[in-house]
Amino acid sequence: MTALTGDGSDGWDVFYKARALKKQGHPIIELTIGEHDIRTHMDILAAMGRSARGGHTGYAAVPGTEGLRAAVARRIEAQSGVRTTEDNILITPGGQSALFAAHMAVLNPGDVALYCDPYYATYPGTLRGTGAVDRAIPCDPAHDFQPRATYLEAAAKGARSLLVNSPNNPTGVVYDRATWQAIAKTCITHDLWLISDEVYDTQVWQGKHISPRSLPDMQERTLVIGSMSKSHAMTGSRIGWICGPVPVIEYLTNFATHTTYGVPGFIQDAAEFALSQGQELEDEVAAPFRRRRRIALDLLTQQNLVRAVPCSGAMYLMLDMRATGLSGEAFAHALLDAHQIAVMPGESFGQAAAGHIRVAMTVADDQFSEALAVLLSFAAEICENKRRF
Amino acid sequence: MTALTGDGSDGWDVFYKARALKKQGHPIIELTIGEHDIRTHMDILAAMGRSARGGHTGYAAVPGTEGLRAAVARRIEAQSGVRTTEDNILITPGGQSALFAAHMAVLNPGDVALYCDPYYATYPGTLRGTGAVDRAIPCDPAHDFQPRATYLEAAAKGARSLLVNSPNNPTGVVYDRATWQAIAKTCITHDLWLISDEVYDTQVWQGKHISPRSLPDMQERTLVIGSMSKSHAMTGSRIGWICGPVPVIEYLTNFATHTTYGVPGFIQDAAEFALSQGQELEDEVAAPFRRRRRIALDLLTQQNLVRAVPCSGAMYLMLDMRATGLSGEAFAHALLDAHQIAVMPGESFGQAAAGHIRVAMTVADDQFSEALAVLLSFAAEICENKRRF
Repeated sequence: MTALTGDGSDGWDVFYKARALKKQGHPIIELTIGEHDIRTHMDILAAMGRSARGGHTGYAAVPGTEGLRAAVARRIEAQSGVRTTEDNILITPGGQSALFAAHMAVLNPGDVALYCDPYYATYPGTLRGTGAVDRAIPCDPAHDFQPRATYLEAAAKGARSLLVNSPNNPTGVVYDRATWQAIAKTCITHDLWLISDEVYDTQVWQGKHISPRSLPDMQERTLVIGSMSKSHAMTGSRIGWICGPVPVIEYLTNFATHTTYGVPGFIQDAAEFALSQGQELEDEVAAPFRRRRRIALDLLTQQNLVRAVPCSGAMYLMLDMRATGLSGEAFAHALLDAHQIAVMPGESFGQAAAGHIRVAMTVADDQFSEALAVLLSFAAEICENKRRF
Repeated sequence: MTALTGDGSDGWDVFYKARALKKQGHPIIELTIGEHDIRTHMDILAAMGRSARGGHTGYAAVPGTEGLRAAVARRIEAQSGVRTTEDNILITPGGQSALFAAHMAVLNPGDVALYCDPYYATYPGTLRGTGAVDRAIPCDPAHDFQPRATYLEAAAKGARSLLVNSPNNPTGVVYDRATWQAIAKTCITHDLWLISDEVYDTQVWQGKHISPRSLPDMQERTLVIGSMSKSHAMTGSRIGWICGPVPVIEYLTNFATHTTYGVPGFIQDAAEFALSQGQELEDEVAAPFRRRRRIALDLLTQQNLVRAVPCSGAMYLMLDMRATGLSGEAFAHALLDAHQIAVMPGESFGQAAAGHIRVAMTVADDQFSEALAVLLSFAAEICENKRRF
């Protein structure tokens, strides 16, 4: 059994402490994980029920139903402009499963697999789980956590794949065209596979989502990871996909036969129904985060102690707490103890985000506004005390 | 990308040919794959709908809901007599996913992983998918395809794990106590992990299902694979489990975090409901196969050309067609061409089953009886022609 998770203390104890306190009945405000405060839409659940009662309860085709694969292909083609058919699509039981399978397809044991730090918590373990050697590319806060060409170049020698995520969890950054060009250049120069995790593609508040599969010479070396979790508030349905070159999808279908044997047909039918609702439903699901980001920006401009990483996308705010003199972890623990507000320490997402916290915008607007105001005045208080002593 | 599937022609073209003919409108009788001719029970689907509409649509706990883990543990303890708690259980998105994860937990790349031939079609690829070297233990028809002590011993040197399946797909054999004792002895002598695929545990027509986890000194080296697919006609729901020692389940929970991120909560609630119905529902789901096996035995005793491997369990008949002088594959193709009846060639399940066919008892009793009668007289006809020329 290989060690999948890391180096001891990774800052998740504040999350578990908050969960335990909540279970004991304490009124904890959780701004920790990326889960909507709404449930899956009743119309989607009704579609699932119709499919199940209609008899779609036996084995579904392993690569996915024709209808859903075609619907995903159409959506990707419309968004990216890249010709895409159902043969480019494998349906998976969630985005995490897609991330693992995509890396299994392109890596051999011992290969070096790159990812950007800060990172979504499962990334390094997912790479190690395939038998690969994980190598982080540091993305520094001074550059808004976008990977720089020099760091990409420095890390790429001898590597086999690169995993990127934009809109980004945990930073809320949407990669700009210059960043994508540097990424594409690195992949082409060093013959890397690019795994592009685009599960936040409907949550873009500023700028434009670019899928690197649409860049010159990238289509044949890019695997796009998608999911219904964030875009349609279907986290618990565990349904996602991989989009890539036909031979890779054929291999992945074979891999799926041996690792998952497909995805429930009634969930696929629900997902197909959800996609058929088009952008209107996607906008409805994204709207609360768009509003709360506005609320956050208004509060943040009223002070100049806590710097926010420009939140261009996703359901998170990354806040630079270094002016308080505390680590992200220390600040998060102090905030939980003093005010029953739980946030994630930046350190949970890698060393590059040390001294930061991630605030999930996943509670009702009023509560969110109040919690963020408390957080900011608590930070100011700490600074004040620091100055005084 | 490693090659997961085998050595070219593996006898599955008769299956694909049948599917294609059926799609074109030909009245094919499919006795091929292990899918019930009933759907998932409406009460189970109603439980799923209640859970989903009730709001269980967000992330479920990665190892499974407390309720389902406890229900599975109770069932296993009741069946096997081995003390089992929810800490021994990981819920997985189906039995295939459980098979893969269990082997990932106990194998390192390059380790030798054993399995018995004939085998369920995905076994060798599942082992190879983990990076292991797969090694078959031949089980010969003269011994009703139960693995013999001498072959187990011969294969075990230098191996790390052994995968067994009783009641067995494709043979319909239920391993007897002597076989289990030989298996246990081999595992203990050679320090092997035993992966026991028990997904057909409710389909026992003769003898008794023994779980090897209940044998002396086996509990700490056995991982039991279970599933709701066959026992509750929930194939399309993709829900199963692994039962094993607590440290392995803890590792597997971590592995699941990086490969599946859990199983839909509403499907887990449906499964918990289904298990709460107890043996009555399990017997109801198994009943058609019990009846059809009786029908088959009656037909088979009226002739002495085609020998049936004693069908003690599972939803399949394994028939020895060697008296016809044809391979299983040739007979299956001839039967499909002449009578629109599709069966699986034994060769699809390994070399040990050459000259055999597997007949799934998965169509209505009348149709099954008629198809089997046609099959037997077709075999007689071939023999007659052979004698004449």
